[in-house]
Amino acid sequence: MSVKDHCGIFGIFNAPDAARHIYYGLHALQHRGQESSGIVTSTTDSDTGAPVMPVHRDFGLVLDVFDDPKLFDDHLIGDAGIGHNRYSTTGSSQNRANIQPLVVHHRKGNLALAHNGNLSNARELRKSFSERGTLFQTTSDSELILHLTAQSRRQKHLNQVIDALMQVEGAFSLVLLTDEHLIAVRDPNGFRPLALGRLGDPDQAGGAAYCVASETCAFDMIGAEFVRDIRPGEILVIDREGCANGGDFQSYEIPTNFGVSQCIFEYVYFSRPDSKIFGEMVDKVRRRLGVELAREAPVPEVDDDAKTPIVIPVPDSANTATLGYANECAEQGYRCRFELGLIRNHYVGRTFIAPGQDRREMKVRCKFNTVEGLLQDRTVIVLDDSIVRGTTARHLIKMLRDSGASSVHFRVSCPPVTHPCFYGMDFPNKEELLANQFDSVEEIGEWLGVDSLAYLSAEGMKRAVYGANSNNTQGYCAACFTGNYPVPVNMDASKDENEMWAPATAEAA
Amino acid sequence: MSVKDHCGIFGIFNAPDAARHIYYGLHALQHRGQESSGIVTSTTDSDTGAPVMPVHRDFGLVLDVFDDPKLFDDHLIGDAGIGHNRYSTTGSSQNRANIQPLVVHHRKGNLALAHNGNLSNARELRKSFSERGTLFQTTSDSELILHLTAQSRRQKHLNQVIDALMQVEGAFSLVLLTDEHLIAVRDPNGFRPLALGRLGDPDQAGGAAYCVASETCAFDMIGAEFVRDIRPGEILVIDREGCANGGDFQSYEIPTNFGVSQCIFEYVYFSRPDSKIFGEMVDKVRRRLGVELAREAPVPEVDDDAKTPIVIPVPDSANTATLGYANECAEQGYRCRFELGLIRNHYVGRTFIAPGQDRREMKVRCKFNTVEGLLQDRTVIVLDDSIVRGTTARHLIKMLRDSGASSVHFRVSCPPVTHPCFYGMDFPNKEELLANQFDSVEEIGEWLGVDSLAYLSAEGMKRAVYGANSNNTQGYCAACFTGNYPVPVNMDASKDENEMWAPATAEAA
Amino acid sequence: MSVKDHCGIFGIFNAPDAARHIYYGLHALQHRGQESSGIVTSTTDSDTGAPVMPVHRDFGLVLDVFDDPKLFDDHLIGDAGIGHNRYSTTGSSQNRANIQPLVVHHRKGNLALAHNGNLSNARELRKSFSERGTLFQTTSDSELILHLTAQSRRQKHLNQVIDALMQVEGAFSLVLLTDEHLIAVRDPNGFRPLALGRLGDPDQAGGAAYCVASETCAFDMIGAEFVRDIRPGEILVIDREGCANGGDFQSYEIPTNFGVSQCIFEYVYFSRPDSKIFGEMVDKVRRRLGVELAREAPVPEVDDDAKTPIVIPVPDSANTATLGYANECAEQGYRCRFELGLIRNHYVGRTFIAPGQDRREMKVRCKFNTVEGLLQDRTVIVLDDSIVRGTTARHLIKMLRDSGASSVHFRVSCPPVTHPCFYGMDFPNKEELLANQFDSVEEIGEWLGVDSLAYLSAEGMKRAVYGANSNNTQGYCAACFTGNYPVPVNMDASKDENEMWAPATAEAA
Amino acid sequence: MSVKDHCGIFGIFNAPDAARHIYYGLHALQHRGQESSGIVTSTTDSDTGAPVMPVHRDFGLVLDVFDDPKLFDDHLIGDAGIGHNRYSTTGSSQNRANIQPLVVHHRKGNLALAHNGNLSNARELRKSFSERGTLFQTTSDSELILHLTAQSRRQKHLNQVIDALMQVEGAFSLVLLTDEHLIAVRDPNGFRPLALGRLGDPDQAGGAAYCVASETCAFDMIGAEFVRDIRPGEILVIDREGCANGGDFQSYEIPTNFGVSQCIFEYVYFSRPDSKIFGEMVDKVRRRLGVELAREAPVPEVDDDAKTPIVIPVPDSANTATLGYANECAEQGYRCRFELGLIRNHYVGRTFIAPGQDRREMKVRCKFNTVEGLLQDRTVIVLDDSIVRGTTARHLIKMLRDSGASSVHFRVSCPPVTHPCFYGMDFPNKEELLANQFDSVEEIGEWLGVDSLAYLSAEGMKRAVYGANSNNTQGYCAACFTGNYPVPVNMDASKDENEMWAPATAEAA
Repeated sequence: MSVKDHCGIFGIFNAPDAARHIYYGLHALQHRGQESSGIVTSTTDSDTGAPVMPVHRDFGLVLDVFDDPKLFDDHLIGDAGIGHNRYSTTGSSQNRANIQPLVVHHRKGNLALAHNGNLSNARELRKSFSERGTLFQTTSDSELILHLTAQSRRQKHLNQVIDALMQVEGAFSLVLLTDEHLIAVRDPNGFRPLALGRLGDPDQAGGAAYCVASETCAFDMIGAEFVRDIRPGEILVIDREGCANGGDFQSYEIPTNFGVSQCIFEYVYFSRPDSKIFGEMVDKVRRRLGVELAREAPVPEVDDDAKTPIVIPVPDSANTATLGYANECAEQGYRCRFELGLIRNHYVGRTFIAPGQDRREMKVRCKFNTVEGLLQDRTVIVLDDSIVRGTTARHLIKMLRDSGASSVHFRVSCPPVTHPCFYGMDFPNKEELLANQFDSVEEIGEWLGVDSLAYLSAEGMKRAVYGANSNNTQGYCAACFTGNYPVPVNMDASKDENEMWAPATAEAA
Repeated sequence: MSVKDHCGIFGIFNAPDAARHIYYGLHALQHRGQESSGIVTSTTDSDTGAPVMPVHRDFGLVLDVFDDPKLFDDHLIGDAGIGHNRYSTTGSSQNRANIQPLVVHHRKGNLALAHNGNLSNARELRKSFSERGTLFQTTSDSELILHLTAQSRRQKHLNQVIDALMQVEGAFSLVLLTDEHLIAVRDPNGFRPLALGRLGDPDQAGGAAYCVASETCAFDMIGAEFVRDIRPGEILVIDREGCANGGDFQSYEIPTNFGVSQCIFEYVYFSRPDSKIFGEMVDKVRRRLGVELAREAPVPEVDDDAKTPIVIPVPDSANTATLGYANECAEQGYRCRFELGLIRNHYVGRTFIAPGQDRREMKVRCKFNTVEGLLQDRTVIVLDDSIVRGTTARHLIKMLRDSGASSVHFRVSCPPVTHPCFYGMDFPNKEELLANQFDSVEEIGEWLGVDSLAYLSAEGMKRAVYGANSNNTQGYCAACFTGNYPVPVNMDASKDENEMWAPATAEAA
Repeated sequence: MSVKDHCGIFGIFNAPDAARHIYYGLHALQHRGQESSGIVTSTTDSDTGAPVMPVHRDFGLVLDVFDDPKLFDDHLIGDAGIGHNRYSTTGSSQNRANIQPLVVHHRKGNLALAHNGNLSNARELRKSFSERGTLFQTTSDSELILHLTAQSRRQKHLNQVIDALMQVEGAFSLVLLTDEHLIAVRDPNGFRPLALGRLGDPDQAGGAAYCVASETCAFDMIGAEFVRDIRPGEILVIDREGCANGGDFQSYEIPTNFGVSQCIFEYVYFSRPDSKIFGEMVDKVRRRLGVELAREAPVPEVDDDAKTPIVIPVPDSANTATLGYANECAEQGYRCRFELGLIRNHYVGRTFIAPGQDRREMKVRCKFNTVEGLLQDRTVIVLDDSIVRGTTARHLIKMLRDSGASSVHFRVSCPPVTHPCFYGMDFPNKEELLANQFDSVEEIGEWLGVDSLAYLSAEGMKRAVYGANSNNTQGYCAACFTGNYPVPVNMDASKDENEMWAPATAEAA
Repeated sequence: MSVKDHCGIFGIFNAPDAARHIYYGLHALQHRGQESSGIVTSTTDSDTGAPVMPVHRDFGLVLDVFDDPKLFDDHLIGDAGIGHNRYSTTGSSQNRANIQPLVVHHRKGNLALAHNGNLSNARELRKSFSERGTLFQTTSDSELILHLTAQSRRQKHLNQVIDALMQVEGAFSLVLLTDEHLIAVRDPNGFRPLALGRLGDPDQAGGAAYCVASETCAFDMIGAEFVRDIRPGEILVIDREGCANGGDFQSYEIPTNFGVSQCIFEYVYFSRPDSKIFGEMVDKVRRRLGVELAREAPVPEVDDDAKTPIVIPVPDSANTATLGYANECAEQGYRCRFELGLIRNHYVGRTFIAPGQDRREMKVRCKFNTVEGLLQDRTVIVLDDSIVRGTTARHLIKMLRDSGASSVHFRVSCPPVTHPCFYGMDFPNKEELLANQFDSVEEIGEWLGVDSLAYLSAEGMKRAVYGANSNNTQGYCAACFTGNYPVPVNMDASKDENEMWAPATAEAA
């Protein structure tokens, strides 16, 4: 029912030709949303001198939406701006008005917003606005923040924005652009990542440029360096004065009753391995997920005269965990080898029409093929980052068997996904989750058609996420695995449950 | 000057709804050409009963060009057809008339053609036609075959086509469609791969469907099984009678003075690893390239207290060779580990405009990022399938160093590319080839900025291609590495040179 | 500064396949706006049964925006709906959000609106909303009515809409669609026309369909019959009960201090001659304008041996008035003949780029050509409906002279346009109006390059509009000719002035 | 079966920025073809200095196909060029390859062609080429001229072109562009008009620019002056030398057995009234057609107390003839008045989908409406230029009656169309022609629903075309009225018949 806001966001301030940096940053964040893309900049009207916010946004990939150099030369002028990639849950949800960033011309000035996440009090806010007769132009939660700002009784525009941000709850990372500020916000739980970067020399006249991004891979793209994460609950106000003073920006804290609960699924699947989020390289965590899984469910033993078993990832998302798994198995003395037994076809059209055939199967076949010779008469251990519905996994397993694998063992580098996400991840209904359709892992394995199936345990996942060194003591949300929702999503979810998974020290955060 | 015809082709005969099989087959061959795509089928006009060949072709990826289900339901009717993916050398070559398949309505019937390759006697043919006043509608060599057919003095259409095919020389794999046949052709040298597949039960009424494709991965996509390669110099005529008789089709041989010389670069880079070409899985050959390279240029030794050196591929094309290399190095006792240290961003827009920056560098950064934590203080051995211009390699090496690699060693799983290809591969001019710009491998390494650089030797490549078992005795073309062109491309190229690399037994083929 | 809302509107209720009637109705009203077009219908969601309002709107002509039959078969379902054609003042004003009809999903139900006109209290309303923090999604006045509705304290939706309509002032004709009503509104001055029509048999089950349109030519198009004009200040609520009861609908009156002041320029130029507006056929009024002009400024006398003078219209808008003029001149014994001496090229592209030449001149030449032989050595009396900037007229006169006219006399079937319109007509600034740039009609004629120039007098126009029979006693707005604005547009405009032109009986309306 | 080539053509030579003149010229000729438009210019490649012919062509109106100023600034460079508007018979004939001008790169140089007409020996030529194995890229006759040129045995390119032109028969007007000449050709019968114009001062250095156009209205558009018609059978070769010498160009004559037979339907309907063709202004001829019709079938007498009968045209094509008719009737003392009782809606979308209704009726209603008040209780004489199928006429008559006309009398300013045109005019099959479906004019009138019906007689048409002064003695083709085809179209058509209608003196032409 609610529209998912699983997205990539990027903002930059004090950078000549801001739009081109945003263009590259959004391209690096393309994996976080492929439905639509948009950029807003802040400049002054050449005729009137009034502050204006030119915008360009459309359905499509970043490189396609911004395929006209004139957009950068003539239209998206200015040294500050924000951008947004949007995730598509279904094609039918294509509502043009929902393409972000949103921009409004407000009596106190212009205001633009790019939003990754969901507001948990959206229903209440929407109801309250609706009763006052406020009209909505989009179906997204993000618009509520604009109305809260516009209807704030505070005098200064910045204070109105802060006033608004204090009133929203849920799972969100935000960048906002006013005529004078770039504002970066993370919800108090810190569900979604958001990082601060710096581009250029802080000692130059006017100071360096500062940027914020969902993931640090966007900083690498433009040659910016990572400064720090935006803290859970932080409202960071980037302005010219702060830029000139070496990045000394004002911060505000959103009050909260909840502890920190960062989305563990960002590590498991969603973020890019070359990003650093929540204080740790994704690649490193993902490798440890593989290592822990190897300890819990190593490769099966085979006869001495059998070919060496091969460990293969479902490419590309399971590549890193599989390397960790294979290395750990080898280290423990198991006979096995990392291999690439599935080939992924990355050419994706805008439309897949699946003429005359089973759509789901053909979609899998359009994406993956097996390397036949390699699999022949092999014990194959195939590893995926997670199983949600299970349809892709089942088709892949059949393809592996058809290619001659003597046995197929499935390993999953996270626990069974049993609960929907109310904080921005696009999972299906509870009933559609594979793990809820069977009574045991064995039965799931049977349905998938594997010789053995093993998920990483919740404990294993926790160890992998916290790592060897114990100074990573932040809390995480694992509600999709546990059902313990850290922020109440309705009457049924108690506060106690929400915090069960959060580490002890997190409560003070 | 000449237009490159590096493409993917697919044909099918005796298959209800031929077009949908072609659609999937072309998608599997998307890597062989992304500029344009087209499908022609053979059917009869619903009003007149006359044989007609509906066609649809446009610029774009397969899934985009064919994004309207009505194309399959209403337009591309019939149980036979051919399809084509075209490779773009530059955006400026976008001549709509060149999009294949070509179709002509000829006095003897309809004729459609999809072509992968170049004709070496194109200039002579074109001159001769031009003198007779023949007008050309495209700038592609492929059209010459249509004129040869149309102007043949033979009586039967099939004989005209065969007559035409006997007159062309060069490097080509072709599928032709007449109102009654699907014809698959490989030039006598067998430069480009072309395979025959079967779909469905040969014992059913009317027999199985038969298909031909540039690579066998297209058969996997539609569930067809590989039958055999089209032989170098073979003209295979697929008709209804042959389908009904278990695939007993008529073959004709194109006479030749040359031996077989299959393109070795198909193994090195171009084909998909999950395809079987020239009698061997590409994955297997590519792995052996890595093994041979490991024997010639293993990972460097490092201090005992140094971190384990990592072997990383330039993804995805070097993945398989790198696995072979890393496994062989480990087997030989070198301390090293296969890793994925470069992340590839597969989201590619139709247009990359590179606003405001060095276009080449940003194109590399848009495609690749490093996994910083992994590379820190490491000895990194990075392996690529080949080096052509070297610009991408140089940028990647800089990125690896910037991410903290203590030393970077580059390995290439083929010899230096020193000569242009006249048989369909899109290499730049001789002067632009990196290997021709320096006097030694050391100097190249210096320009690239590596601690060491090693190419696989020609001998090593030969061993890898022929494999351990010696029954693979076909000849290969390695002209891009050796300059020995198996078919004369102009006065300078002697016949002797061309055959130096071909194995002894190949001359009798 | 303010966006012009010069448009065509159409609504229909109780008509199966409402959208197709709207499609045809809007096509008939195409002359009132060519920038964009849109249709909204009212139906129930096939899954939930909830009332929904499917909408389709885009830039372009009606026949182009609705060029997909599926829109009518699958999307714009329902037996009630409204549509809108929008006028473009400049290409740069292309703001997609402004395309009407506007639709909002409101707590009391769905609400759609199509609007022709301007609100005179828009600035005050906008300011008041803005201070309360209401955000706007469009730059059009029309949106204010939606906010007024949404923020109304009335309980029932219909009452909220009526409440809102009571608060707006200015020049507007509106159709609104709720889930249960079609509401037609004309401002108390009745600036813009709006008529009620009936389609089908009122005695059939459920009653006839009722429709409203800017002009009655839309009724002719769909075979509906004219019932009556919507009265100035009337809010007519069309519902199912009223349809079943022979058109017995509820009406509400918007209170007003002003008299009726219908836009006289609708008669002069804007409406189609085959429409009946303000109680009279446009054709008839326009003919009388020509007759009055003939009485005031007949054709000049010429020598007996000269060719017969010809009276020609600037096609097509001046055709009817010219017929009236020529007939009256003939009746009065002047030697002259109606002719068609200017040919109009009706092929208009979406873009006119005027390469390499004076844009204005080429635009005139792209639209008009002279009939050379006819004009040779003639006294030519050319008649246009009005002169605004005068640039087209000047070019035409030069073309007539170049074609051999011995003398050119210009006649205009209305007085000089001297004041901008604040009620929806798209006139330029006061300074750009030709009549304000010269001290006398003679000087204007000199600049235009004519032998004589005559405008219709204000008295003459009044006589023509009221006609022979005196029961047409409604008031008209002639502010563009007189500067007497019937509704204050700012502090300077006094109420007295506004009513000077309104007839005596109108004050009681 | 054969594709109609009813088109507008334009060429210009020795004019800087040739393309922009062609653009305007084609716009003026838009009425001759609305399906597609194209321009080719002649220039030299900026790199190689070789002569090249840039081309741009697409489906759509001129102003739409050429909506990018860059086309003129960067692409269509050169001081010579030709252009073409193509007529669409049906939407299904949309074959992109057929869009003209055609351009080929020929061994002797570049050659472009724009063609208005049909070749009567196309079938024979096509067969002969086909037997020699020539492949065709289009389905249009025009391509045959290109093959004839390319296969000519003459040495010089110009001679090859002339050689080719000598071999074609039929009804055509052509412009060809070589790297050095603009060639204008009219078939020996002179079926289609083609005129020569001059732009600029012939005494300037290099001489004036010379242009050719289907109709002289294109000269008016660009400010060129009419020089003379291209003579039937003339091949006029415009080159630089001739331009420099005041227009002293070389001409060649196509030998012929036939007399001149210019298409009379160009006068009746097709050409613009502001054009001069075949030596006479179209407007003048069309007026005389009305005068002759008035003499043969004047307005009916009505009672003295009846309203004055009105004479109305079907706009816009019958406007001029109706003026002639009404004036002549008045002169003869009949009580009647010219009026505009039908209003034409000129807004035409690219697609008309006619949702849910009788397509033909709605198409008529989308184009025409009646002026109700005017028609009430009137005797109405409605005049159209011709009747082909009669469906539009029948709907219009019904609309006039529905609007209150007391009686409707139909007058047609040409004889009954009884025979198809084989020379380029797009008439339906013989059976579909209204006049062939009934035995008498009375029966046709009955089917149309009129009180009286009268066509102009063949004699009357002849008088109108030849005019009062007798020096217009050229022959005309009236085959669509008489069935006397001046050029044999198949075995049945005898040469004698063809010349029956041609005037005596024409045989010597």
